[in-house]
Amino acid sequence: MEERDALDRFSAARVARIATVDSAGRPHVVPVVFVVEGTTLYWAVDHKAKRSPNLKRLRNIERNPNVELLVDHYEESWDRLWWVRASGPARVLTEPSELHRAIALLGAKYPQYLERTPEGPVVATTLLRVSGWTASEKA
Amino acid sequence: MEERDALDRFSAARVARIATVDSAGRPHVVPVVFVVEGTTLYWAVDHKAKRSPNLKRLRNIERNPNVELLVDHYEESWDRLWWVRASGPARVLTEPSELHRAIALLGAKYPQYLERTPEGPVVATTLLRVSGWTASEKA
Repeated sequence: MEERDALDRFSAARVARIATVDSAGRPHVVPVVFVVEGTTLYWAVDHKAKRSPNLKRLRNIERNPNVELLVDHYEESWDRLWWVRASGPARVLTEPSELHRAIALLGAKYPQYLERTPEGPVVATTLLRVSGWTASEKA
Repeated sequence: MEERDALDRFSAARVARIATVDSAGRPHVVPVVFVVEGTTLYWAVDHKAKRSPNLKRLRNIERNPNVELLVDHYEESWDRLWWVRASGPARVLTEPSELHRAIALLGAKYPQYLERTPEGPVVATTLLRVSGWTASEKA
């Protein structure tokens, strides 16, 4: 899959899964809603922020900023499977203009966020590597 | 979410995402089809085995057996979101009777495997930790 196609498929998805690594070197993976602008991906810690899995994700990033995100398509016809992985370093936004822009972008993609603005930190990931796979390419 | 309910939801899913950690401490996440028996999860490296992402997963496990798997449900009504995470150590099966049983279990869950038996290694993960979250529980 071409990198451009991979990034397009990734960006269009409604949900991704984000993997981080904890201090003991164990992987941690949770679903995340996100928006991509250029090669920067944003996601917000929303009202569920007080729950440990979300906090754990942030703690992991603080110690080890490397994250990988996955978007995948499953169906019973396995010749139609595809997935895209994207990875890079994550950082919590602190600069107000970037933070506000990220929240606006999230609101534009998810009307759910217009009803309930995310209250927690917003995290940016620079997508240094994007790669995809489709079953049909292999066939 | 009760652990029993979490394991039931997890086991019933058709696809999960598996996160591993590479030698540089970076997370790696890919989709996987799997079957759970008791508290052991099996997945196979199939015909895509020669592709680097699958090999990478095996290389990662060899060095660091800790894996985490995620099953999640997304829909636009965010009050119906849920996910289940399961984690534990992974090991490549070598004992023939366990290997054959795992392949039979995969075939029983996925008719796709009856047409095309997995050719690569089969990996077992002992699910030491299973936990889930539902948006409705929080509401």
